Amino acid sequence: MPSANKVLVAGSVNMDLVATVSRLPRPGETLPGEGFALHPGGKGANQAVAAAKLGAATTLVGCVGEDAFGKDLRAHLLDSGVACSLKVADLPTGTAMILVDEEGENSIVVIPGANASLDAPAIAEVPVRAGDVLVSQLEIPVPAVAAFFERGRAAKALNLLNAAPAIAGANDLWPLADVVVVNEVELEFFAKKPVRDRRGAANAAIAARRFPRQIIVVTLGREGVVAIDGERVIERPARVVQAVDTTGAGDCFVGALAARLCAGDRLEEGLDYANKAAAICVQRPGAGSSMPTSMEVDVA
Amino acid sequence: MPSANKVLVAGSVNMDLVATVSRLPRPGETLPGEGFALHPGGKGANQAVAAAKLGAATTLVGCVGEDAFGKDLRAHLLDSGVACSLKVADLPTGTAMILVDEEGENSIVVIPGANASLDAPAIAEVPVRAGDVLVSQLEIPVPAVAAFFERGRAAKALNLLNAAPAIAGANDLWPLADVVVVNEVELEFFAKKPVRDRRGAANAAIAARRFPRQIIVVTLGREGVVAIDGERVIERPARVVQAVDTTGAGDCFVGALAARLCAGDRLEEGLDYANKAAAICVQRPGAGSSMPTSMEVDVA
Repeated sequence: MPSANKVLVAGSVNMDLVATVSRLPRPGETLPGEGFALHPGGKGANQAVAAAKLGAATTLVGCVGEDAFGKDLRAHLLDSGVACSLKVADLPTGTAMILVDEEGENSIVVIPGANASLDAPAIAEVPVRAGDVLVSQLEIPVPAVAAFFERGRAAKALNLLNAAPAIAGANDLWPLADVVVVNEVELEFFAKKPVRDRRGAANAAIAARRFPRQIIVVTLGREGVVAIDGERVIERPARVVQAVDTTGAGDCFVGALAARLCAGDRLEEGLDYANKAAAICVQRPGAGSSMPTSMEVDVA
Repeated sequence: MPSANKVLVAGSVNMDLVATVSRLPRPGETLPGEGFALHPGGKGANQAVAAAKLGAATTLVGCVGEDAFGKDLRAHLLDSGVACSLKVADLPTGTAMILVDEEGENSIVVIPGANASLDAPAIAEVPVRAGDVLVSQLEIPVPAVAAFFERGRAAKALNLLNAAPAIAGANDLWPLADVVVVNEVELEFFAKKPVRDRRGAANAAIAARRFPRQIIVVTLGREGVVAIDGERVIERPARVVQAVDTTGAGDCFVGALAARLCAGDRLEEGLDYANKAAAICVQRPGAGSSMPTSMEVDVA
């Protein structure tokens, strides 16, 4: 009996430390904060949680520190149904220090910590099979992502690169990806073309594509999604919802798309499903804790 | 057999979350951070640790959340020899989010969390005896400090107020304090007079004094210390050292002064000892973890 295909995510695991303030502090200033919360985060962990909650058998490959945050994040992942292959490094668990003011303006400092220690040997520990969907992003070292996608290619798996955040080193990874997911800012960075509308997004995506069969998916927020797949340009509107917190919405989209492609959906079906899932995610606060379940998406 | 006098501290218990960055982020910006560390902090906890490490029998009255930070801070206090009377509140443990750039410029957001729940009933649980030294500051609610000092007065203990940070509500506490310790910024706030030099500090301290026998101690950083005690003006130079991190130096001074007054030192002796202890503290990074032991002060 063949086992079902899996979503394998190699990526970052962070604790988001979120303080709410009346205004952002100036240099040299000490301000009282109004609220404080810890949220599980990191693009890799968020995407793995999204895929797992939507029913995909999901494993996360990552790296945490030997500290309380690392323990809490591992527990959160396991609770969310994600199988963990987490290396423990002699560095603090990755963190993001996020200040949010009353107007929703924020400033963020991301400290990679243990994420910077993820390497090819850690990647090699996870079995990859034909039909699996491999997902990665750019909050872990580029050589680790390259090793991961080379394993995917050798095993005839599907490699999905979420090219975020936009960093120059990622140019080496594009040729290894069957599917690339970017937002408009990232697409402008990689295509070196301005993206003003859906048509501009399609043109920039074609310019950025590295080989004819590579699928490029561009998320445009409330403008929806544009994807190019061979000769086809696929456009999908976004769902109109009242956004509460867009943190993690992109990760929800990527995790949902991976889960549906892993289950055998066609691209259009996967995009529609991912749109629905992301629309639910933005109506809730937080990132890793706001991912919807498949039951919630089915009734949306 | 009479038991020795104690230092009783009512005050804040925080986890300091310190990120080092190349520069401070602007609103709307996401920056990579270079380092991240957790340091035990909070003025109350720091002062208690300082007093305990210098050999005083010390108890801290405070409030933490039912979370990992609360557990870690309790363990740190016990390891440092501080007896804990910590209420557990249904709020997150107090935190300070601290960004420090390459030039040493910082921005700080302090989230009181559980510290805001410290109240008179929690204060009432700690026995107070004649000759004990009661120490408090302004990172916990003013009514809790008032209840603490009223118990001190009733028991013929010595009340030491570190009037920091400078907040208007503290004016009600000054009449309850036998000794007030302030830095020059706090003295300007409470005396409503500019403090430009040692002479100005002495004059402002006399103006701020609420009753003739109240002792006012003004810490002036590298300008040393000025204190007024009745008719006397006591001046003490600071020790010339290479400062690495001044975080917690004021707390070290207060904890050391409390420890020595508790042991029966005269004011001048206590000030000299506290100066020596603070000079050691500034030569080490961190706050709660950089307090010296009595052996280290004795050989300095």
